[in-house]
Amino acid sequence: MALGPESASAPGTERVVISVDAMGGDRGPAAVVAGLVDSIAQYPRLDVIVHGDEVVLRPLLDRQADLAARVTLRHADRVVTMQDKPAQVMRHGQGTSMWSTIDAVKDGEAGAAVSCGNTGALMAVAMLRLRKLPGVNRPAIACLWPSRNPGGFNLMLDVGADVKAEVEDLLQFAVMGASYARNGLKVARPRVGILNVGTEDHKGRAELKEAHDRMAAVAAVGDFDYVGFVEGGDLPSARVDVIVTDGFTGNVALKTGEGTAKLIADFLREAFGAGLMSKFAALLALNSLKRLQRRIDPRRVNGGVFLGLNGTVVKSHGSADATGVAAAIGLAYQLAQVRFLERLAARVASAEAAGQDAARMRVDRAEADRPDTVPGTGGNPTE
Amino acid sequence: MALGPESASAPGTERVVISVDAMGGDRGPAAVVAGLVDSIAQYPRLDVIVHGDEVVLRPLLDRQADLAARVTLRHADRVVTMQDKPAQVMRHGQGTSMWSTIDAVKDGEAGAAVSCGNTGALMAVAMLRLRKLPGVNRPAIACLWPSRNPGGFNLMLDVGADVKAEVEDLLQFAVMGASYARNGLKVARPRVGILNVGTEDHKGRAELKEAHDRMAAVAAVGDFDYVGFVEGGDLPSARVDVIVTDGFTGNVALKTGEGTAKLIADFLREAFGAGLMSKFAALLALNSLKRLQRRIDPRRVNGGVFLGLNGTVVKSHGSADATGVAAAIGLAYQLAQVRFLERLAARVASAEAAGQDAARMRVDRAEADRPDTVPGTGGNPTE
Repeated sequence: MALGPESASAPGTERVVISVDAMGGDRGPAAVVAGLVDSIAQYPRLDVIVHGDEVVLRPLLDRQADLAARVTLRHADRVVTMQDKPAQVMRHGQGTSMWSTIDAVKDGEAGAAVSCGNTGALMAVAMLRLRKLPGVNRPAIACLWPSRNPGGFNLMLDVGADVKAEVEDLLQFAVMGASYARNGLKVARPRVGILNVGTEDHKGRAELKEAHDRMAAVAAVGDFDYVGFVEGGDLPSARVDVIVTDGFTGNVALKTGEGTAKLIADFLREAFGAGLMSKFAALLALNSLKRLQRRIDPRRVNGGVFLGLNGTVVKSHGSADATGVAAAIGLAYQLAQVRFLERLAARVASAEAAGQDAARMRVDRAEADRPDTVPGTGGNPTE
Repeated sequence: MALGPESASAPGTERVVISVDAMGGDRGPAAVVAGLVDSIAQYPRLDVIVHGDEVVLRPLLDRQADLAARVTLRHADRVVTMQDKPAQVMRHGQGTSMWSTIDAVKDGEAGAAVSCGNTGALMAVAMLRLRKLPGVNRPAIACLWPSRNPGGFNLMLDVGADVKAEVEDLLQFAVMGASYARNGLKVARPRVGILNVGTEDHKGRAELKEAHDRMAAVAAVGDFDYVGFVEGGDLPSARVDVIVTDGFTGNVALKTGEGTAKLIADFLREAFGAGLMSKFAALLALNSLKRLQRRIDPRRVNGGVFLGLNGTVVKSHGSADATGVAAAIGLAYQLAQVRFLERLAARVASAEAAGQDAARMRVDRAEADRPDTVPGTGGNPTE
């Protein structure tokens, strides 16, 4: 690991506790428990608090002897379904496994939370219970994207926490995304780009141009390199690590990429399914196809991370199986053990302070430009 | 062909003239001429006016005996490059092959235009010379998308004519896209969806919700079925034919899809390139891989169609080879021979009239709701 200045992590013997919602996923609690078994075997320092209906969960857990010492079951009567509206869950969600999962992070019992449930409801409950980080206006969901980079993944945010983003939000997404790339992807100095319809400076919407103009100043504080505008075709590119966009565009891009990969996989299967020779070839090509599958397997990139809250929350795909759940828990574990939240909060705070300095300087300069005011009195030093 | 009420087309012996810009593509005029050769062989009724530098083009054309009787060369001194800014080309573009290509459509010599050049400049010149169709506020670029539908393609617009779209624009995109699907893809009754971050009615941006609420009324006039919101994963879906979105989102989605397909193709090549057994398997799988290739070959879906102008313009990919150029010319030919523009104009006009009726009805109703006005006097019958 080459994490640079942020490489200090929890001491090698300290336990790392993750809070896991066992309910609300498409495949039910059995898939979550199977994922737990994988994770517990993989990370010796991992302990888990698992939330859900004990009538269902207790027998599933009891069947796995390895879990007994390291998994604590916390009963929750109710479940948030995929159909529940976020606003309803915010008002009436107490007593659900999702709420309880988030509260374990809020109360300091766990270092991060994982849920396969309803994304909108999870964001709503996380916002309500954990609150936004000081200085953050709009939280974001960051997802991984298979890429040509040596690490195999790029990062994109926001992919759907909100349907829009102002200039300030895009700048903050850059800071938060770079911090995540450093701590979650081990990229020592992340390269950040803004998603646009062309790479030329004059292209795109007004807010993107303004974010573009102001990004260099933010990059200095956020300890990343700004590479300028990138296009949809650059999402898997090796010239960028973190792609910043609003939640509407990011969500469409994410689902378009997943949909395209699925279409090609289906076409590939049909192509190899037609004719005896093809089937024979497919058998011989099995290793090659498996190698390909490993590189674009959506289960390996499972886990959208909520950034900008007082707590780390990993949203697993609703349809995640054991491998997918284990990947999401592994991501939460990695972020918790490097104390990602403290680092993120520190980055956001210093970026905010720098932004205030810059704003103050702009005010000072603007005042200095006005001939009838005394230079230097525009800023408010008590801010 | 099952084109329904719009199935009347140019009589079977009438010549169909297409205006082709030979310059400005990444592969130069040789690729365009090679594409011409393919197209001329494929469509007996096709004639071409080709625009560009005769010093370069004449020798290329003279080498192809089949072209002599059916291709007219029109000399143009200058070329629009990929680096030229649209605004500059609008002011100083006269005398370029692109300008001349569009003017042949404007002057009624050709039924449609094809260019591999700079997209922004082409849209600017087309807007300037052809002008917008009466009733169209914002033209759009429509592209094809490999899909699970029997025809093999879906249609998405706008993919980059502009970076935004208002409610009225989205409704017009639906009318224009449905007309294109009927005439270009031979879908008798197109199904239209609005691209959003979820399929539930309450999701997404305000303008999308308003377009959603008003789309049923437009569908009746535009002779299509409205299927509601669709997501990025639905772009290749068999439950929709036409996907409507703003040019920013559409452009990002298009390039994301292309980038994902390219990433997987590269990974597939690497997977099959590793190890002797894999190479042997690849050899056996060649037919399967070719079948796959044919279904997702971007050259086959080459050709973004500009909709909403007084003339049909097909933008070929800048890097198109002979196959790609021939596909773009074939698309232009198909649209010209069914007299797509007249049909599109008629659709837009009736949708506009219906919209005015609806607006008038809304005014009437609003007036009727106000107790102190006389019902029925709000509309202006001379509109």
